[in-house]
Amino acid sequence: MSDIPSSVVLREVGPRDGLQNELPVPAARKAELIAALGTTGLSRIEAVAFVHPRAIPQMADAAEVWAAVAPAPGVGYSALVPNLNGARRALAAGFTDLEVVVSASETHNLRNVNRTPEQSLDGIAEVIDFVHGSGATCQVIVATAFGCPYEGEVPAERVAAFALRAVADGADSVCFGDTTGMGSPPRVRRLTGLFRDQAPDTRLALHLHDTRGTGLANLVAGLELGVAEFDASVGGLGGCPYAPGATGNIASEEAVYLLQELSVHTGVDLEALLEVAALAQEIVGRELPSRLLKAGPRTRLSV
Amino acid sequence: MSDIPSSVVLREVGPRDGLQNELPVPAARKAELIAALGTTGLSRIEAVAFVHPRAIPQMADAAEVWAAVAPAPGVGYSALVPNLNGARRALAAGFTDLEVVVSASETHNLRNVNRTPEQSLDGIAEVIDFVHGSGATCQVIVATAFGCPYEGEVPAERVAAFALRAVADGADSVCFGDTTGMGSPPRVRRLTGLFRDQAPDTRLALHLHDTRGTGLANLVAGLELGVAEFDASVGGLGGCPYAPGATGNIASEEAVYLLQELSVHTGVDLEALLEVAALAQEIVGRELPSRLLKAGPRTRLSV
Repeated sequence: MSDIPSSVVLREVGPRDGLQNELPVPAARKAELIAALGTTGLSRIEAVAFVHPRAIPQMADAAEVWAAVAPAPGVGYSALVPNLNGARRALAAGFTDLEVVVSASETHNLRNVNRTPEQSLDGIAEVIDFVHGSGATCQVIVATAFGCPYEGEVPAERVAAFALRAVADGADSVCFGDTTGMGSPPRVRRLTGLFRDQAPDTRLALHLHDTRGTGLANLVAGLELGVAEFDASVGGLGGCPYAPGATGNIASEEAVYLLQELSVHTGVDLEALLEVAALAQEIVGRELPSRLLKAGPRTRLSV
Repeated sequence: MSDIPSSVVLREVGPRDGLQNELPVPAARKAELIAALGTTGLSRIEAVAFVHPRAIPQMADAAEVWAAVAPAPGVGYSALVPNLNGARRALAAGFTDLEVVVSASETHNLRNVNRTPEQSLDGIAEVIDFVHGSGATCQVIVATAFGCPYEGEVPAERVAAFALRAVADGADSVCFGDTTGMGSPPRVRRLTGLFRDQAPDTRLALHLHDTRGTGLANLVAGLELGVAEFDASVGGLGGCPYAPGATGNIASEEAVYLLQELSVHTGVDLEALLEVAALAQEIVGRELPSRLLKAGPRTRLSV
């Protein structure tokens, strides 16, 4: 335990991965949420996705949302893009950090974008070149990294191979996405170890879900292997598109709370983040899954 | 990780700790739940509490409930008792494994039973003698072991000292109770280590809650220190009496799932347990907090 990172970067993905799995929210309220998150000490926020409005109607207003946000100083904002066209839109909107996705599961990738993962990786190589040509950075997220809702097991070797291909093609960093919450500590250790052995110098992030209750145990497993970048969603905003009512992303405030307990610096003000979680809950109009949001921090005592 | 136990005992506490924090349930349905749990492979079930009906009306029918249960072969059933009178009732009902509780927080103990922890420990010593005189066993649960909703911090040294006093008085085993979910991995490691250093041969159990999202990460922390007995509640039945709507016990099926992933034997059939979790949800008539209950096991694929 002594060699866990002394500080980690949490990337808040509620406005993107969270809201794209909620009922549509007006652009002004999205901008309000992004602005509020910028005041909590979070250093990175995935703000929007430039995807086709027919594919994900919840993100159709990405440019409008982003135009309404006054970026907070010291916060890095990023956008997810599916292809070259999305990358062009994101760069035109002013983003300089982009993310692209490929699913390690062939079935999942085919169903999502009607391409094989290899075809997606070919496209991603072009996107990386294009993004770099504009002086921006590009992270490659490998989805279904710990299991696929259609195929079940996704071999860690296959996931690592796709990630290494992306690194060879110039990816600035890699993120393993537990798309439907099928990860567990041994699976996190296995894949992280495999990848790290072959790409020890590449920035690695974990995008964990808490669909089966192991989200924070998975985070600890990654942390113990030196991973220092994690995605999380305020309030646990979002969900799992494959199981109605199920939980999606780990809740940002629960991650911050755990990291505080582990004496790992995040820079985030937990009380401020809890206020934004309450705002997120009000914006989507449903009870969010965050347990900490209901219970309050351990320092909030009864009288 | 290589020295985690190869098998652990899960004690199902839903019928007692779970139901005592829910609206009252008819005795027949409690018996139905206990009987259903007995078919899942669980080896231990905390069935009822023999407490004063004015203190906990939900448990007023303990003898009636237990009389309606046909014990399943190979399952050990236990009862929680507050004092000698409760112990007499539990033994008369046929129980041979009892639990008693003391809170390490003075304020919490005073508010719960109007005695100081030291006064409670004096009474517990008498209960242990009495129980042993009847050939039964007695576990001492030290509550608020990782924090108190009134006092905040509860020093691990104080918790360990109370546990060691109970061991000196003859307790057959000790259980640290995270009464309001204030535990975290470092706190679990600290207290477990302190106690184990001084009582390496005493059976030690952890009663963990998931009130702030860290329940399963706490379980892993205990497991890594060799703890091989954990309490859990089917469906996450119960709650936190100090925060309306907040989560209580870790969900049994989530613990089983995690332990399966860690290749730790529990003897529990996960699919059977999930069916009982659905039954528990039907019995209490509210959505239970178990995430796995909503999502299903990772082997349940989409079509």
